[in-house]
Amino acid sequence: MQIFIRISLFLQEYIINRISDMNNLPKIGKYHFVAEPFHCDFTKRLFIGHLGNNLLNAADFHSNDRGYGVNYLNTINKTWVLSRLSIELERMPAIYENFIVETWIDSVMRYFTNRNFKIADDEGRVYGYGKSIWAMIDTATRQPVDILKTNGETISKYLETEYVNPIRKSSRVKLDTDLKLQKSILATYSDIDINGHVNSIKYIEHILDLFPLDQYKKYRIKKFDIAYIMESYNNEKLNFYTDIDSITECNNTVFIRVTKSGSEDEKEVCRCQITFG
Amino acid sequence: MQIFIRISLFLQEYIINRISDMNNLPKIGKYHFVAEPFHCDFTKRLFIGHLGNNLLNAADFHSNDRGYGVNYLNTINKTWVLSRLSIELERMPAIYENFIVETWIDSVMRYFTNRNFKIADDEGRVYGYGKSIWAMIDTATRQPVDILKTNGETISKYLETEYVNPIRKSSRVKLDTDLKLQKSILATYSDIDINGHVNSIKYIEHILDLFPLDQYKKYRIKKFDIAYIMESYNNEKLNFYTDIDSITECNNTVFIRVTKSGSEDEKEVCRCQITFG
Repeated sequence: MQIFIRISLFLQEYIINRISDMNNLPKIGKYHFVAEPFHCDFTKRLFIGHLGNNLLNAADFHSNDRGYGVNYLNTINKTWVLSRLSIELERMPAIYENFIVETWIDSVMRYFTNRNFKIADDEGRVYGYGKSIWAMIDTATRQPVDILKTNGETISKYLETEYVNPIRKSSRVKLDTDLKLQKSILATYSDIDINGHVNSIKYIEHILDLFPLDQYKKYRIKKFDIAYIMESYNNEKLNFYTDIDSITECNNTVFIRVTKSGSEDEKEVCRCQITFG
Repeated sequence: MQIFIRISLFLQEYIINRISDMNNLPKIGKYHFVAEPFHCDFTKRLFIGHLGNNLLNAADFHSNDRGYGVNYLNTINKTWVLSRLSIELERMPAIYENFIVETWIDSVMRYFTNRNFKIADDEGRVYGYGKSIWAMIDTATRQPVDILKTNGETISKYLETEYVNPIRKSSRVKLDTDLKLQKSILATYSDIDINGHVNSIKYIEHILDLFPLDQYKKYRIKKFDIAYIMESYNNEKLNFYTDIDSITECNNTVFIRVTKSGSEDEKEVCRCQITFG
């Protein structure tokens, strides 16, 4: 019989907090997850959407526990929004495997902060890395606010600049190819998250649903890059443009642009590139 | 600062297993979960799909740890399939709330076994209950097999008939109203689970997406009943029939039938009834 142990950092931090105070929390947060059976795809490996969700959970726990997360920000009508997410994977956790997400902030500027992720197993073997960029916005105006003026001092106490992340600084996702409209959907109830807009991870799921199952039989995702440009909401029409036809000739990188179309114009919501291999 | 503690029964069972053996595991399994922020809807309460997923996880852990789960069954080309799921809720876990799922089997017959769920908070306050019926099938023929001949002796050791579940025996979901086609979709990558068919929970998500957001602003789900009749697969067209128009007049129970349409005929995949209140 297999025994699986899942103890989140909640427990570790609970213990730490009983013998010290919040200021002594380590700069790098460490969170334990398991590849739940129904979060795995037909290849019996974790869906990248669920991995992405675990990265966002780790970011949420890490920032809240250190006093600069959304739990505090909501009290002053501010919140974090994800602007970029890059994931590079050597392999993906298989069903029932435990994995550890380490997360840390390496820099904070007026309008952006860089959050890193390292995904490894219990024995330190690396699954992959992630890099993300976050902005802080005012929840009423939805406009960016100056992070350094809002809570920069708290974040700055936890900057970790030495820990290695092999993903280089994220550059903007470039879409220099001709993309064709492949699918349109209406955003519905299960797309909408606690902030009332389409959840960042839901775009990833819809994007991956553009590919035939064969793509995932033949290849795995080595690199996933998404840039979030504008929020979208319930009942908005989301259009997915891709150069997916080119994957029959070229199985490496595919580009996807997501727009939303209103009564008058079409606006870019996010853009994405995926490298299969 | 809020401290959240999540220790799954994995840990408890790990400890139990160090001082005893598998035969001494309690009949009722007890599993700890938290309402993760990105598993909550716009009302900041857990999506019922994610609750359903946690119930299935609890069932999976409970049966595997006791030697009659899919980890064992897969070695003899058998597996469990969910046939019915009923959930009755007094309230739904809110964002970050811890909740405990207790699960136990109260009866085992040739072709079906009854699994119960109780969902409560740390202080024993009940969120709701669940009742489910499972069949065992041969993974090659996809036909039902006799549970008692396969592994009945193992399951029977863990029958718990005294613990109270106020949900009465599930009767078949009756569809006695005129249902209209409301939406059709193609099953895609993220619908397909480790068994290669559309995941039980994904039907629930697609069904809930049939309702406008206003429905969830005005009402909460008090009762959710789904009967799974036939499997569906990637790229099959799923049709959702409802009497949803009647909810403007009557806000209590709505019926949904899901079919799949092949080249020739249309077959019923599952049927569902939801009581809002």
